[in-house]
Amino acid sequence: MICVLSGGTGGAKFVDGLRQVMPAEEITIVVNTGDDLLWWGLYVSPDIDSITYVLSGLLSRERGWGVKGDTFLCLQAMGQLGEPTWFHTGDRDLAVHLLRSRLLAEGKTLSQATAIICEKLSVKARILPMSDSKVETRVDTPSGELSFEEYFVQRWYQDPVNSVRFAGADDAHPAPGVVEAIVSADAVIVAPSNPITSIGPILAVPGIRDALLRARGKVAAVSPIVGNAPVAGPAGILMAAQGLPCSIAGVAKAYEDFLDLLVCDARDARAAESLRQSGVRVQCTQTIMRSASDRAELARMVLAHTVGPKTDQRPSEESSSNEAAARGADQP
Amino acid sequence: MICVLSGGTGGAKFVDGLRQVMPAEEITIVVNTGDDLLWWGLYVSPDIDSITYVLSGLLSRERGWGVKGDTFLCLQAMGQLGEPTWFHTGDRDLAVHLLRSRLLAEGKTLSQATAIICEKLSVKARILPMSDSKVETRVDTPSGELSFEEYFVQRWYQDPVNSVRFAGADDAHPAPGVVEAIVSADAVIVAPSNPITSIGPILAVPGIRDALLRARGKVAAVSPIVGNAPVAGPAGILMAAQGLPCSIAGVAKAYEDFLDLLVCDARDARAAESLRQSGVRVQCTQTIMRSASDRAELARMVLAHTVGPKTDQRPSEESSSNEAAARGADQP
Repeated sequence: MICVLSGGTGGAKFVDGLRQVMPAEEITIVVNTGDDLLWWGLYVSPDIDSITYVLSGLLSRERGWGVKGDTFLCLQAMGQLGEPTWFHTGDRDLAVHLLRSRLLAEGKTLSQATAIICEKLSVKARILPMSDSKVETRVDTPSGELSFEEYFVQRWYQDPVNSVRFAGADDAHPAPGVVEAIVSADAVIVAPSNPITSIGPILAVPGIRDALLRARGKVAAVSPIVGNAPVAGPAGILMAAQGLPCSIAGVAKAYEDFLDLLVCDARDARAAESLRQSGVRVQCTQTIMRSASDRAELARMVLAHTVGPKTDQRPSEESSSNEAAARGADQP
Repeated sequence: MICVLSGGTGGAKFVDGLRQVMPAEEITIVVNTGDDLLWWGLYVSPDIDSITYVLSGLLSRERGWGVKGDTFLCLQAMGQLGEPTWFHTGDRDLAVHLLRSRLLAEGKTLSQATAIICEKLSVKARILPMSDSKVETRVDTPSGELSFEEYFVQRWYQDPVNSVRFAGADDAHPAPGVVEAIVSADAVIVAPSNPITSIGPILAVPGIRDALLRARGKVAAVSPIVGNAPVAGPAGILMAAQGLPCSIAGVAKAYEDFLDLLVCDARDARAAESLRQSGVRVQCTQTIMRSASDRAELARMVLAHTVGPKTDQRPSEESSSNEAAARGADQP
């Protein structure tokens, strides 16, 4: 069993790689819900949606979010009704928001609603929200405090950021199965997601960081920072706001208490070397995922370096890689 | 001011005629809400929607319901999620259901939500739900009791009907403005809608029938029955179930306590003659509305015979018709 901690875009790409090289049934993804929002009265969970869509084959690869080939006629009509349209929900995408909202209104938890939607979409991996409690990522800017989606989508992350907080986190509990999945996994992989606003909310839920410290398997993180810049999005600005350098050293710092291995891009080989000198295990590889095979290759490489006991007796990269490739062949 | 009592399809056509021949600002439509349903967790009010769409120019003329040129991708996606799809909500149509549902969830009444949606869609006429209370048309069949939409849309009105009832009607109140609109109107027109399940629920709301009896203006009804058959839908079956013949006599009987004038199709001239002998005022004309000009012509004719004092001193058909035509010329 592999447990992945993930946000949306980058995380979805990594999970797409993982499902190519191992049985989806053996993957549990603990997903950030700090971006969740009520949109047009519907409960939208952007990161759970991205992970659900990538695993069901519905994700739009061009956009990196939403359903492939989707149309936006309801959005257009909402605009004509004077409703906000900055958060782009497609017509097909709406179905998931409608079903989830109805399930929640009927008293189901977010975990239960997620499991039902996954079953309907034949998702074999297990997707767990980090928590069934409300935890809201709040971005403090000179214009006031914004929700993450307001900051990120509505305002195109153009505001300077003073700080980030996770409202409600102190009183939140990990969703059922989250702690067990982390503690018992053969490896825990922190996806190449924004350390502050994708992984940060997950770590802010009391009990999850502790679970990572108690994890039976190795804990690896794939750096979303390549050559002192984020692969995508506002990770750099947000890391700086939280006092972290925008570098693989900053990523290592964010996860330092539980990290066994940092996987960073080959372009960061020099930075990796100095990190190693400070005692961090670092593995360099190609981390930019342009194609499906890039994704599979990265997943294979990360698995090769993480699956196995925490001691040095882990399978060699080569044999692990071949094994993963063999399994992948059954799951194109 | 003209007040129309209306259901969806036939009523929408008649209202479309009316708005062609008089200022929309002077029309109030009291609309059946007995068909309202929770669909995918959203509050859908089919008849209010049809009247709103026809008055905003959005109604699909081909279908007679929903938004013209709409697509059904969300519906398709809901089907893939295993959700019911028998009630066809288009992608653009969903916007109105989403907005109304959010407004109701925020504590607005159905009247208030309707007024807000009408304002957003620049509807100049006043659309009033018959009641802000829940009144449900229930159709008793050998297969059990069905909601109207289950009977009509899901099961294509194929079930034999034992009886119809309006659950909740006894405790309902007319929505704000309904009684005043009926009592004070220059004329009240019962649209060519199903007397049992479109007009019946309106009349079942305590106070509305009484308002019709107290109406200052004439009360006319346009028969939805032509030549012993309904123009569309299950009116005949439902009238029979309620002990009424499927004829203009049945329509007259349904409204006998408040009706000043029955407008029926020219094809029913003979039946009209025997109705007249029993003391009912009947006017025959072309009532089938195939084109926009059919609709306008019917509206013009009905106005000509209703607007004016309840005594015999009403404007002659010709002058009234010309006046209406002149006003209509400003409102193509």
